[in-house]
Amino acid sequence: MEKRKIKAALLGLGTVGTGVYKLIHRREDVMERTIGAELEISKILVHDLKKTREGVDASLLTNCWQEILEDEEIQIVIEVMGGIEPARSMILDALHAGKHVVTANKDLVAEYGRELLDAAEEGKCDFLFEAAVAGGIPIIRPLKQCLAGNDISEVIGIVNGTTNYILTKMFEENMSFEEALAKATELGYAEADPTADVEGLDAGRKVAIMASIAFHSRVVFQDVYTEGITKITSADIAYAKEFDSVIKLLGVAHNTESGIEVGVYPMLINKEHPLASVRDSFNAVFVHGDAVDDAMFYGRGAGELPTASAVLGDVIDVARDIEYQCTGRISCTCYKELPIKAFDDVKNKFFLRMQVKNQPGVLACIAKVFGDHKVSIARVVQKRVRDHEAELVIVTEKVKEYHLKDALHELQEMDSILEISSVIREY
Amino acid sequence: MEKRKIKAALLGLGTVGTGVYKLIHRREDVMERTIGAELEISKILVHDLKKTREGVDASLLTNCWQEILEDEEIQIVIEVMGGIEPARSMILDALHAGKHVVTANKDLVAEYGRELLDAAEEGKCDFLFEAAVAGGIPIIRPLKQCLAGNDISEVIGIVNGTTNYILTKMFEENMSFEEALAKATELGYAEADPTADVEGLDAGRKVAIMASIAFHSRVVFQDVYTEGITKITSADIAYAKEFDSVIKLLGVAHNTESGIEVGVYPMLINKEHPLASVRDSFNAVFVHGDAVDDAMFYGRGAGELPTASAVLGDVIDVARDIEYQCTGRISCTCYKELPIKAFDDVKNKFFLRMQVKNQPGVLACIAKVFGDHKVSIARVVQKRVRDHEAELVIVTEKVKEYHLKDALHELQEMDSILEISSVIREY
Repeated sequence: MEKRKIKAALLGLGTVGTGVYKLIHRREDVMERTIGAELEISKILVHDLKKTREGVDASLLTNCWQEILEDEEIQIVIEVMGGIEPARSMILDALHAGKHVVTANKDLVAEYGRELLDAAEEGKCDFLFEAAVAGGIPIIRPLKQCLAGNDISEVIGIVNGTTNYILTKMFEENMSFEEALAKATELGYAEADPTADVEGLDAGRKVAIMASIAFHSRVVFQDVYTEGITKITSADIAYAKEFDSVIKLLGVAHNTESGIEVGVYPMLINKEHPLASVRDSFNAVFVHGDAVDDAMFYGRGAGELPTASAVLGDVIDVARDIEYQCTGRISCTCYKELPIKAFDDVKNKFFLRMQVKNQPGVLACIAKVFGDHKVSIARVVQKRVRDHEAELVIVTEKVKEYHLKDALHELQEMDSILEISSVIREY
Repeated sequence: MEKRKIKAALLGLGTVGTGVYKLIHRREDVMERTIGAELEISKILVHDLKKTREGVDASLLTNCWQEILEDEEIQIVIEVMGGIEPARSMILDALHAGKHVVTANKDLVAEYGRELLDAAEEGKCDFLFEAAVAGGIPIIRPLKQCLAGNDISEVIGIVNGTTNYILTKMFEENMSFEEALAKATELGYAEADPTADVEGLDAGRKVAIMASIAFHSRVVFQDVYTEGITKITSADIAYAKEFDSVIKLLGVAHNTESGIEVGVYPMLINKEHPLASVRDSFNAVFVHGDAVDDAMFYGRGAGELPTASAVLGDVIDVARDIEYQCTGRISCTCYKELPIKAFDDVKNKFFLRMQVKNQPGVLACIAKVFGDHKVSIARVVQKRVRDHEAELVIVTEKVKEYHLKDALHELQEMDSILEISSVIREY
């Protein structure tokens, strides 16, 4: 008697696709005991049929989406192509045809998640995307299931490995941003065009997805304020050390009574915070819930096999749902419609570094401007740089973004302020 | 029309039970949107009906288990009494009656897990126990689902908050073990009889459960070698600092080709390892899988609400399974029968501190004894303590436990060795 089989199609055979293909083969011997059936990749959608692909059964390759869509034996579609189109259309096609979908596509989920989850719900299909956030780290399922009894107020993540690697090198080996970026590129952590990483766009997509799930209310990428790490200097890093802190690019989401705050920006964070010890290209997501208190999830945020681990975890879950006829069991959990707070109204502490004329009364003038704009000062450090010029570091209490912006605008007009060198938020 | 209700009974109303009761009430308004039905605690089993319990509806209390067992409307039993009996019998009764069970009982799961899971499988019931390991930290579900595509070779956990608090105080505030224990008792972290915590028994139960799930093979508490932290001294902590390490009580499980290694003991661990920065009473579990690489789960390992968070996460999962008629969907995942390695055959690195006579040739003699017993030395630090006495610290390479034991036995007989002060493993 032939064994029962669950057939899946793979869309895309890049880094993640190859990882998924390899991993499913590696687990062949245990899959039946894990899900009660064999799991088989029966078709792989690729762009170029002629490219040689080592270790891949060439007879599975096709460049025709219809062939997969119309194959009724294929119950699961694994989308690992990335990008919005044609991924979006194909996933919608698949869900409408009653196929379950697993995806690693953060761009797509961060922008069209609602549409895709709605289509899944309509067809009672599973639509899972653990791999879209923080690679191999389990975070979507813990939020949707393990922490489902919590009112989650805060999600903060180091969710971009490239920038965390760069900041670690700057911090531990005193590299400049440019040197650390070059090193990251050399090691393959950074892409030829590193904009999406270093400007916080990649992290912004992930934090949109996490905020949606944690707060049960839809947050899309366009809602996320983003600021990158290109302006961070060795001088900032040195002050961070002096303040017993590190600088990390954080995706920050808070659920407050006046709306959801969501952004990505570099922050000084005290070295005793669990996120501070997340080094190199590792990722981590820190969550605060009213019952669980603080929790953190740490691991590899990218890479062929770590991402494949998350994809296969989802595929196994779909297969179990198919076996137990309970697909669609956990679909969209965004049952609230919370407002997104304008970023100007968000409150943050700030670390400000500026070059000022070294003359009496300057600090008093600066303090007055801050006072006028409701900015309270928590700490001031002044260091003489040259005879007539001093470096001033001011750490504020929590202030609204627009109050600080206004104050800085006024300071920039002052003769005694030579340069505002750094404006970095503090956790 | 009355809303659909899922009824549950709570067995026990101690710290965790009270937390679960409170938390379910706190989530009343969102439960229907979360699980598609209302969730109601309809009976609570307590020992003493007369005790006043603030905030608890007294009409729900009963001291009669049969009353709950025979109530056909009760679909879920939440066992938070702790201990082996009567918890074990009641859970078996409940499962045989087709009721689903959620428990926080590590003692029971570590010893009778197989029996309980078998009973659950037989009745197609859910039997979930996320709260039994590391309190609020999601670890069971991530291992069973998110990381299901991995071959997991290593699980290492700081899974006892009391001892982690004590070691943190010893490390950061130079307290002695006794001082730190007194502080932990004062804060309610340590119980009147702290044996189960400080001797590693509590951690041993948790590591047995985690090893079973991670390696798909049954490990019970009796398989776990345990050693506590009572012998750790300020001198050991000082050396750990000198070696850029901390000392942590770790539950350690490895899946090797020659069997499962499982134990609990204090270890020196490099301060760059993610577990090293887990402070105070926090817990964390570090996992290595062939696909996911390194991952870590961090949070509160105990306490009323963190534990209730894990319990309610499980209850919500059961309720969703009831709604989708797929209870029993993920039951026992121990489909292998791997041998447990005798602890004497496990290999470890060791940190050894000893007081020796300060005379020529002593080190040569010690080195010879180690060599005779196949113990390779990685590092030696000698410090003169007094004129005729020196403190010697030796760090070994990985050696089999029994080889080290034999070597130490021989060293103890030597005239020039005054005392073997510490024997601590190193990660």
